[in-house]
Amino acid sequence: MAQQVYKADQIKRQVLASLRKFGERVVSDLERGRFPRIEIPARTTSNIVYDEKLRQYVLGDKRIERTAKNIRHLRPFAQLLWIATFAKQLIQRGKTSTLRDTYYVAIGEGIDFEDQSESDEMIMQLESILDFPREDFHIFPEERASIFGDLVIEYSIPGFRGRRIDLSAHPDGFAIGPALTTAEFVRCGAEQVFVIEKGAVFSRFVEEGADKKYKAILIHTAGQSPRNCRKIIRRLHDELGLPVYVFTDADPWGVHIASVLVHGSALSAHIREINVPDAIWAGVWPSDIRRYKLPSMKLSDRDIKRIQEL
Amino acid sequence: MAQQVYKADQIKRQVLASLRKFGERVVSDLERGRFPRIEIPARTTSNIVYDEKLRQYVLGDKRIERTAKNIRHLRPFAQLLWIATFAKQLIQRGKTSTLRDTYYVAIGEGIDFEDQSESDEMIMQLESILDFPREDFHIFPEERASIFGDLVIEYSIPGFRGRRIDLSAHPDGFAIGPALTTAEFVRCGAEQVFVIEKGAVFSRFVEEGADKKYKAILIHTAGQSPRNCRKIIRRLHDELGLPVYVFTDADPWGVHIASVLVHGSALSAHIREINVPDAIWAGVWPSDIRRYKLPSMKLSDRDIKRIQEL
Repeated sequence: MAQQVYKADQIKRQVLASLRKFGERVVSDLERGRFPRIEIPARTTSNIVYDEKLRQYVLGDKRIERTAKNIRHLRPFAQLLWIATFAKQLIQRGKTSTLRDTYYVAIGEGIDFEDQSESDEMIMQLESILDFPREDFHIFPEERASIFGDLVIEYSIPGFRGRRIDLSAHPDGFAIGPALTTAEFVRCGAEQVFVIEKGAVFSRFVEEGADKKYKAILIHTAGQSPRNCRKIIRRLHDELGLPVYVFTDADPWGVHIASVLVHGSALSAHIREINVPDAIWAGVWPSDIRRYKLPSMKLSDRDIKRIQEL
Repeated sequence: MAQQVYKADQIKRQVLASLRKFGERVVSDLERGRFPRIEIPARTTSNIVYDEKLRQYVLGDKRIERTAKNIRHLRPFAQLLWIATFAKQLIQRGKTSTLRDTYYVAIGEGIDFEDQSESDEMIMQLESILDFPREDFHIFPEERASIFGDLVIEYSIPGFRGRRIDLSAHPDGFAIGPALTTAEFVRCGAEQVFVIEKGAVFSRFVEEGADKKYKAILIHTAGQSPRNCRKIIRRLHDELGLPVYVFTDADPWGVHIASVLVHGSALSAHIREINVPDAIWAGVWPSDIRRYKLPSMKLSDRDIKRIQEL
């Protein structure tokens, strides 16, 4: 019987090939007696542009060069190579990590990172060099969203490979971690996806049977949607053709959460296709407050500051 | 066939009886032409004591009186009665809410709460009057912990009543919401409980097969453990006799998370038995850093301030 090949397996192969290419380039430079150098897409604000075709924020053409010839580049270059090595080990051993955990491991191995923001930066550089989001080299968000609805998935991770679960079996929702993120969708009775910011609203939707009444998969983002959750939403849209509706609070924070789901964020402009340009912000709109004479609360100074930042 | 009676059903009956008693007392005062009054256990710091027998923080004997005779008490008295009415409706309709959601509903119904802290306070007063935690009148934490391990549960909530699920079926964990909190434990192959603060550590435990190797139920608190998660841990300990081990970061925040699990917190001193006095803090201890020559990070000013607050 042939071993089933999952999408996650293909991605794994591609990421490993990409890591190998990066490593070979450094080795080849060294073997020829040259200082290793690499070009990395610049992730500065001025290099973030909106791509009309992809309908998301992406990086422009500006690139930065990192070369071992420059003594000031040596340290970040070495840090980057350590991160690449760590990523390869995670994939090969079937283990996962987080931004924070990666920093801890680095400290444990005596790698010289000033603080976590330095190792985070290297992880993001590796993302843009490999052109894969860090979840694909097994660095996952610490935060967990959850999912509930008429969808059967099949796991691809070691120990659970080939096993299936029906995501309508637990009404509090299934946490979206490494196993769910890399699972295949095998059967879906739902016709749309409701993405919900607040736990109270998610529970209310479950209690009202919104999953059955509207044939909807319910996703609880628990605030800002973690990146692997955004990827799952994108996959539900792309692979199953499901329309996506976003229910957030009618405040600047809710608007931002919805906007990241639709357009992507500046922080992940170097990552493609974890947003859903066709997603529809379906929660109460501020204009609905007047239209339907809804009760409302005054915007705080903090809210107003947040609006100006959007 | 007799309808199965769950623990959650018994609690529901007790809470409704307690609510009725509260209401009848107010009505009876009114019918006799008296100003309704009620005594509420004082939740001030000076009235929080450590109970050697229960091995948790509890409230002392100090009580505050609230009487409709005093014009300054009228508003909070009315607010409290609205909260009690809302609680009764939640239970009877099989719906749930959160602290935040309750405040929103109150605003929507034109109830005069200055801000959320006022409605939170009334919810906590109702807890101490009824002597039931708010989860028992269906006000749940917004935050979600999750659980994974060799335990089969049976739901008691409407729509899922009588259905079972095996909590070893999803390695990212099952979110602990209203359905799981009120479920019965029907079969358990585990011999202990590991309570884990960090998502990265939880995932690592799953990947290393700690659930099988140590016959352990793994619980991911995602930081400070939500109250209903603490209740589940207590139930695993009381109903199934499982020892509980707590894995938190070796920093003041981790110590506090562990301490709340073991001794309870000042904020919920009016609630009994959501802590586990026998739970053991099993994570790395600060003293282990010296003993095993572990890498460590300097305490920040914020860390030191936190230590002084503990």
